[in-house]
Amino acid sequence: MPSYEIGTIRERLANWVEASRPYAASGCVASYIPELAKSPHHALGISLLHASGESATAGDCGNRFTMQSISKVFTLILALMDNGEEEVFRKVGMEPTGDNFNSMLKLELVRPGIPFNPMINAGAITISSLIRGSSPEEVYRRILDFLRVLAGNQRLSCDEEVYRSESETGNLNRSIAYFLKQNGVLSGNVEDVLDVYFRHCSIQADCSDLARMALVLACGGLDPQTGTRLIPRRYVQIAKTFMTTCGMYNASGEFAIQVGLPAKSGVSGGILALVPGQYGIGVFGPALNDKGNSQAGVHLLEVISRELDWSMF
Amino acid sequence: MPSYEIGTIRERLANWVEASRPYAASGCVASYIPELAKSPHHALGISLLHASGESATAGDCGNRFTMQSISKVFTLILALMDNGEEEVFRKVGMEPTGDNFNSMLKLELVRPGIPFNPMINAGAITISSLIRGSSPEEVYRRILDFLRVLAGNQRLSCDEEVYRSESETGNLNRSIAYFLKQNGVLSGNVEDVLDVYFRHCSIQADCSDLARMALVLACGGLDPQTGTRLIPRRYVQIAKTFMTTCGMYNASGEFAIQVGLPAKSGVSGGILALVPGQYGIGVFGPALNDKGNSQAGVHLLEVISRELDWSMF
Amino acid sequence: MPSYEIGTIRERLANWVEASRPYAASGCVASYIPELAKSPHHALGISLLHASGESATAGDCGNRFTMQSISKVFTLILALMDNGEEEVFRKVGMEPTGDNFNSMLKLELVRPGIPFNPMINAGAITISSLIRGSSPEEVYRRILDFLRVLAGNQRLSCDEEVYRSESETGNLNRSIAYFLKQNGVLSGNVEDVLDVYFRHCSIQADCSDLARMALVLACGGLDPQTGTRLIPRRYVQIAKTFMTTCGMYNASGEFAIQVGLPAKSGVSGGILALVPGQYGIGVFGPALNDKGNSQAGVHLLEVISRELDWSMF
Amino acid sequence: MPSYEIGTIRERLANWVEASRPYAASGCVASYIPELAKSPHHALGISLLHASGESATAGDCGNRFTMQSISKVFTLILALMDNGEEEVFRKVGMEPTGDNFNSMLKLELVRPGIPFNPMINAGAITISSLIRGSSPEEVYRRILDFLRVLAGNQRLSCDEEVYRSESETGNLNRSIAYFLKQNGVLSGNVEDVLDVYFRHCSIQADCSDLARMALVLACGGLDPQTGTRLIPRRYVQIAKTFMTTCGMYNASGEFAIQVGLPAKSGVSGGILALVPGQYGIGVFGPALNDKGNSQAGVHLLEVISRELDWSMF
Repeated sequence: MPSYEIGTIRERLANWVEASRPYAASGCVASYIPELAKSPHHALGISLLHASGESATAGDCGNRFTMQSISKVFTLILALMDNGEEEVFRKVGMEPTGDNFNSMLKLELVRPGIPFNPMINAGAITISSLIRGSSPEEVYRRILDFLRVLAGNQRLSCDEEVYRSESETGNLNRSIAYFLKQNGVLSGNVEDVLDVYFRHCSIQADCSDLARMALVLACGGLDPQTGTRLIPRRYVQIAKTFMTTCGMYNASGEFAIQVGLPAKSGVSGGILALVPGQYGIGVFGPALNDKGNSQAGVHLLEVISRELDWSMF
Repeated sequence: MPSYEIGTIRERLANWVEASRPYAASGCVASYIPELAKSPHHALGISLLHASGESATAGDCGNRFTMQSISKVFTLILALMDNGEEEVFRKVGMEPTGDNFNSMLKLELVRPGIPFNPMINAGAITISSLIRGSSPEEVYRRILDFLRVLAGNQRLSCDEEVYRSESETGNLNRSIAYFLKQNGVLSGNVEDVLDVYFRHCSIQADCSDLARMALVLACGGLDPQTGTRLIPRRYVQIAKTFMTTCGMYNASGEFAIQVGLPAKSGVSGGILALVPGQYGIGVFGPALNDKGNSQAGVHLLEVISRELDWSMF
Repeated sequence: MPSYEIGTIRERLANWVEASRPYAASGCVASYIPELAKSPHHALGISLLHASGESATAGDCGNRFTMQSISKVFTLILALMDNGEEEVFRKVGMEPTGDNFNSMLKLELVRPGIPFNPMINAGAITISSLIRGSSPEEVYRRILDFLRVLAGNQRLSCDEEVYRSESETGNLNRSIAYFLKQNGVLSGNVEDVLDVYFRHCSIQADCSDLARMALVLACGGLDPQTGTRLIPRRYVQIAKTFMTTCGMYNASGEFAIQVGLPAKSGVSGGILALVPGQYGIGVFGPALNDKGNSQAGVHLLEVISRELDWSMF
Repeated sequence: MPSYEIGTIRERLANWVEASRPYAASGCVASYIPELAKSPHHALGISLLHASGESATAGDCGNRFTMQSISKVFTLILALMDNGEEEVFRKVGMEPTGDNFNSMLKLELVRPGIPFNPMINAGAITISSLIRGSSPEEVYRRILDFLRVLAGNQRLSCDEEVYRSESETGNLNRSIAYFLKQNGVLSGNVEDVLDVYFRHCSIQADCSDLARMALVLACGGLDPQTGTRLIPRRYVQIAKTFMTTCGMYNASGEFAIQVGLPAKSGVSGGILALVPGQYGIGVFGPALNDKGNSQAGVHLLEVISRELDWSMF
């Protein structure tokens, strides 16, 4: 009975957040650009939104942060809507890797050189090149509009400072993109593709925004309020599968074992997760563990999933 | 309504099998030992067993074959029952890899040298070393007894010829085992551990046996007939998660996208799969694709999962 | 007695060339840019210049070709003259690799991420960034002037078409350069460094030019005509060592066994080699073997070295 | 004038040794078996033997130590004498690698799976399998007899304790050998081949023994006293080339730059080096640097080579 469960959650959520917050101490806030380094080390917030419209929040939910890799879930969906499965999976694989999210090693060892999956940087950059638009501006605009609809929040926008820093310091992503270009995986102008990629990673959201986007996925692609189909069910299925097998960098396997929910994390400390058919979840905790996931955020989701027996396995 | 669904399945299963059988043509029967090379190239059989006890079969279901890597699911469970989670995951990781199932590369790159997960050979050999018993014979006996209970079939036994061939030609596994020994991951005598490993890979079963073992997992560890708990629920959850993220070698990601069910394949052409709460499934089709999975068998599971909307994602 | 030997060489050189020319048949002319693809497949020419000033030539010696990787020897020397050993070897290693010349794999595996040696692309791009000059034009100009002095040929110049093609298609080198930038190995503007690199690879020469440059190295850095020191002896020693251990891509070990002379090859089919104290050698044969070295050219050097017992080992 | 030079050497050698000895402080004595761990950390000795018969020694020259990897030079020569070049190089490559001496990574990446060169463990184990003999005992006996002749010392023998320890703990070498067996590179019984390998690595020598063996190589394969040919000149050439390109593990490139002499090191702290046509050299200094070479020994050779201008480049 969700109405009963949401009551339990409301009652205990603040306690769970406070029990998980100390884990932030052993994590590190991302510092490769000054904008991220400013994030409050001990922040931890969570927002849950039920399909019924009921919600629960606790901790530092007001904070806004850039979506970073979380946006990869939605650019994948948009690329699928623009091109279909067959075309997308000619350019990007379906396999998880045990490697670091920005490893170039995997790029070289796989033949014929396509990225392993759309959740690693190489895959997500390729996905950026597949989204339709007559200019990088238009491509980005389509991504932003899509996210605004999913979040039910027309005010979502790009954090211009983060975008500029990402673009200026993004030499590893540049290196990956030119490698993809060399291998014929990337069509179009490399810097244009990277511009789209850096921009969509820099879109700002808060926990409620993530929860609402996640709830659309939890509802199989339907708008939870109007019932309108926003995403074809099959593409939601694909997205949820990738979130399960490779959504949490090279700790995806452990997350599947310990939490058991489709999820995607970002380097800014955000996590988007969902309980199929029931909840959309947004978490923010900027101190990261050595796999690049929110230290306290992952712990919080472990506690909740265990307490409420949410693992899908 | 399962009773309705099983009717549909019975009606259409033979057609699905015959539609998938031609895919065997482009596959290759494993030939690294003479015993496997003798398998009938175009064989394809499937057995489904519902929690209610109703079943459906089609195609070449009478064939017996060695479990090979499928046994890794159950040695993992036994090792967990013997040692608990903490101890097991000190020796074996939780992450999928995009690499070939017998790759040594991954052994070297991961620090501190533990196998990525219990489904790759390095991991399964380590798991073999963790199962209790005063001698290799006793360890093997415990594995066999466990499988007999799960299959509800006291006649399960080792194919002695396959075992001898595996043992004689298993130099890559020997190489892996000595590497693990060097790294302190493997305790005990290397040849003893390998003996257990080669033996449990050589246990013979048919599609019905696999379906029954799978049904125990689908029922969360309970005996489907008596309701007796055979496996702690948490260990079933762990096994199902590994089957989902790394059960189909380096095509696990694609299988999750295209089929969406926990499954484990073996080089003899068997696949054990399950629909949580509902079905245990055994498939046999010895012609393998380039990832080492049954060519026609994977196609058959794709068709059934799509037709019956079985993906868990 | 050189004067005796040069007589033998003159007598037999044409025969040796014609005996080696057929080996070109099994090679492939580089085709990644149209300008290289136009090279005459069966061309083979050689020029030898003795310290005494006597010379011998045979085959297609009139052909001009771009120096490509051969230029890496001289940019290394210039970087050493500009910065000293200590500074250069903080940025580039001294070890041969068994890998392909443009492998990114090695970049990732080496810690802390510096290129293995100055003869692979990653190393040579780094070297380009170390040569002094207030602009890319000036850096390039200094390299060109240096080569002109060594070749004793003021007409050496850049092949503008090759340069443009290299620059337009050089995405792998771009990928490498941005990776080096990310790792803090490359200072300065990436595109500027690449511009210098693409330019010096595109300097045109013929066999006589290579022979003269090589003779300066064979003479320990002295101008063979005037006796003027052009390069400090220690830097010649370093260059000769690298030519011996890593001058022929991932066939350097085999070349050392079969020929035993310091040498450097380029993708246009040129080889610069030397007999210490005696000869500078230039070879041209554009059909390449699978390691990227001139197929017929390597064979020709094997024959000559064996006949004249030239191996330095 | 050698007679002059040897005088200089005798005068200054003790000083050079004492100046290099402190470098041992930052090294580590090998400790993977107890017998090596007992080596005196600060020991440093050197013996030079001139083709004329004159010699010079300094430091701790009386110490005896196991030859370890130094023996690889001579098993290679014996395998060449038994099989010829063509046969040997069908099983072992000629390329240096930048990797750790016992890396399995390289084994996997090279196609078709043969070891990179005879100086890495995988290559040397393969070489052991190529030496003729009707039993492991006879193969080993032939190696020992060969070394006794080269050293002019009939008392050379195996350190039985080291041999037993190497054999008992040599799981990485076992892993490599089974991998080679799997790839069809190794013929014969794996444990027999390993037995030969562990035995020849455990042959004891002192600095004078190494110097005498090296002098045979420096003299092109002739016995320096009698002028009798002990090794065909071509095989000496091959051995010297491998010593130059891959004799000092993954510091071979640096050693070529800084010392410039053919040399081979062993994990017990020995180095065998030579000045072509002039000197055989034996060094002992058990404290190793992070590449596995004698810390003080390498420094001592750098000093001597620089002072006497011995680099062959």
